[in-house]
Amino acid sequence: MASEKDMRNIGEAHPMKSGDGLYSYSNNSYFQVPESLHLINYSSLWCKLGSRRELERVLSFKNWRDIINAAKQIVGEAIVESLDILKFSPSTTIRVADLGCSVGPNTFFAMENILEAIELKCQNQGLHSQIPEFQVFFNDQTSNDFNSLFSSLPPNRRYHSAGVPGSFYSRLFPNRSLHIVYSSFSIQWLSRVPKKVEDRSSPAWNKGRIYYLSAADEVVEAYSAQCAEDTARFLQARAQEIADGGLMILIFPARPDGIPHSQLSANILFDMLGFCLMDMAKKGIVSEEKVDMFNLPVYHMSDQELEAAVERNGCFSIERMERLRPISSTLQSLVSTRHRAQAISFHVRAGMEDLIKAHFGEEILDQLFDSFSKKLEQEYSLVESAGRSAPNLCAVLKRKTMNC
Amino acid sequence: MASEKDMRNIGEAHPMKSGDGLYSYSNNSYFQVPESLHLINYSSLWCKLGSRRELERVLSFKNWRDIINAAKQIVGEAIVESLDILKFSPSTTIRVADLGCSVGPNTFFAMENILEAIELKCQNQGLHSQIPEFQVFFNDQTSNDFNSLFSSLPPNRRYHSAGVPGSFYSRLFPNRSLHIVYSSFSIQWLSRVPKKVEDRSSPAWNKGRIYYLSAADEVVEAYSAQCAEDTARFLQARAQEIADGGLMILIFPARPDGIPHSQLSANILFDMLGFCLMDMAKKGIVSEEKVDMFNLPVYHMSDQELEAAVERNGCFSIERMERLRPISSTLQSLVSTRHRAQAISFHVRAGMEDLIKAHFGEEILDQLFDSFSKKLEQEYSLVESAGRSAPNLCAVLKRKTMNC
Repeated sequence: MASEKDMRNIGEAHPMKSGDGLYSYSNNSYFQVPESLHLINYSSLWCKLGSRRELERVLSFKNWRDIINAAKQIVGEAIVESLDILKFSPSTTIRVADLGCSVGPNTFFAMENILEAIELKCQNQGLHSQIPEFQVFFNDQTSNDFNSLFSSLPPNRRYHSAGVPGSFYSRLFPNRSLHIVYSSFSIQWLSRVPKKVEDRSSPAWNKGRIYYLSAADEVVEAYSAQCAEDTARFLQARAQEIADGGLMILIFPARPDGIPHSQLSANILFDMLGFCLMDMAKKGIVSEEKVDMFNLPVYHMSDQELEAAVERNGCFSIERMERLRPISSTLQSLVSTRHRAQAISFHVRAGMEDLIKAHFGEEILDQLFDSFSKKLEQEYSLVESAGRSAPNLCAVLKRKTMNC
Repeated sequence: MASEKDMRNIGEAHPMKSGDGLYSYSNNSYFQVPESLHLINYSSLWCKLGSRRELERVLSFKNWRDIINAAKQIVGEAIVESLDILKFSPSTTIRVADLGCSVGPNTFFAMENILEAIELKCQNQGLHSQIPEFQVFFNDQTSNDFNSLFSSLPPNRRYHSAGVPGSFYSRLFPNRSLHIVYSSFSIQWLSRVPKKVEDRSSPAWNKGRIYYLSAADEVVEAYSAQCAEDTARFLQARAQEIADGGLMILIFPARPDGIPHSQLSANILFDMLGFCLMDMAKKGIVSEEKVDMFNLPVYHMSDQELEAAVERNGCFSIERMERLRPISSTLQSLVSTRHRAQAISFHVRAGMEDLIKAHFGEEILDQLFDSFSKKLEQEYSLVESAGRSAPNLCAVLKRKTMNC
């Protein structure tokens, strides 16, 4: 299982659920962790779970340090191998940005790991006396809860910090001012739902569904085209912002070449959520027209689609494309399918609640996610089977030394 | 009248009142505007005021653009005359910081004015084709409402923006990375209440008062020493952060040399607020001990104190110390002393509410500020007389080209 942490950046109107309530992102974001990571063994806790209250207690477990530290190796290796630190002047402040950082604490651990890797790189290059100053920019949509983010900044951090509000599909930073751009589980969010998908007169009109899975080819194509456009804008903006020799580390669920859309677990989940909404429409609880007009702005591009976008952009070389190993221990450690389904439902809700509330109103949330949880339990084998695949990709791109 | 906008930075626990409610800072901050500025004439509106509701309506007037634009000349002249733009490399991004920015919109107008002046300077120097990129850092305490600030950023701004949480009495930015530091009505806030003033065993124990006016000499000295310590830390941090030839523009209420503390209107207001709190203590509404333990972390240094601090620091030259002309039109345009007193009370409340609430609890607020308003009305001549003085100072400092 993996990409339920998917639930990140979305149009300016739909940030992650802020604060620290039951369904908040900071309390429900362990799926944010790449699948390759060795999760803390929750078994001893899960075994005791008999009530929703206990489930909630466990889901609010916040100590991500051990989990995120396990990502250190992959990101660290990429920095040590590929960052052209000698290209930067010795007195340069190293500027790092996390695009789609949400509210922490994952971003803090990720940034700390990057800084440690840069220091190691400096030492490897014999620059012992020239450990640079660091400035870290935390970016997310303007509607992200920056107040929460700022109030939870680690007190003993070794960097100057700044928050940068705005969509990463446009320029956010001055020319050539960044040295490392990191983005984890964010770029699968499109800048918007493809226009055609919302257009009744288009063959890509996505009636009766909220996602491209099980949809007409035209719908999938519209999503793919929107992703291509967004990725082009993303790469173009970053090409202007990243200094020569700087790196971009992108971790996101990508569809392995040759694997159909229907074998990604996140896709299956979104399809089931759509089914539950349509079921509510049939029962007259929500209007069918409202469901027709609701679509998720998420697309899981394939490795090939990323490679093609990088090639079209021309300013980056691909240093590394590493598929992360899947994990299954977290959910399997839950004692029953019901608990597993509930856990997934909680996490999807953490990411989707604000989006659904804005479109359908708050009153449908409990019923929708109860129904989603039951649907998940009934068809858990589907999710489990897809959960064995490994969609999560770590792509490391390097800014070429050229004007482009 | 001026420095009721005083109510800005304070310990991390006491930001300006956020949001846009009745007593919010963004709705009650016209006193933030330097006294020299030609305020919009509210007379036609004020004449109609007969009820509190109408007063509230007028106080929530939000269009500061004309007001702030009037500051353009002073700041603009300083930049055109003193900024060593040729010292910066042509491709350098110009980085500007507003320290103690609160939630806008004043900070946006101020930043826009600074950027216009820099562009004018570039043109004057024949650098027509080299108008730089701008990055603006909005700084305030971590507890400031950055979410409000970010959501109200001007959509067509010409700069990359970032929020920087933290006290400006410590380092906030990388070495030599800033070109202009601006701070308006913020540095009169101390980093803390002087320790001695809160110490029962000290001769500076400030029993029965919340401020240094009318207090023992030891209390005034403790405030002055705290200010000297804070100003030293402020200048030391900025000396590390500002590039050679960069400017620091400080606008704040400073006591003109030779003018006693008791002739500053803000001081008189704070003294009256203390009187009202003590009156509530005598009536048993709050505990006297609680009043004894409450002190305002504000000090209005003299011109001499600033000059001495700059000299001790050694890294800055003073390019300009300009006293701003007083205004009186705003309050005089109100039809009655009662309305004037109410207007002042609203503004002091906007700045002080969170601070007082944290110490005394929310329940005393209405009664305290009603009583304060009445006290103001009774002794309005005192306030009016002090309001004719011109405490507000614009000091322009330039970073010397030297390591220090």
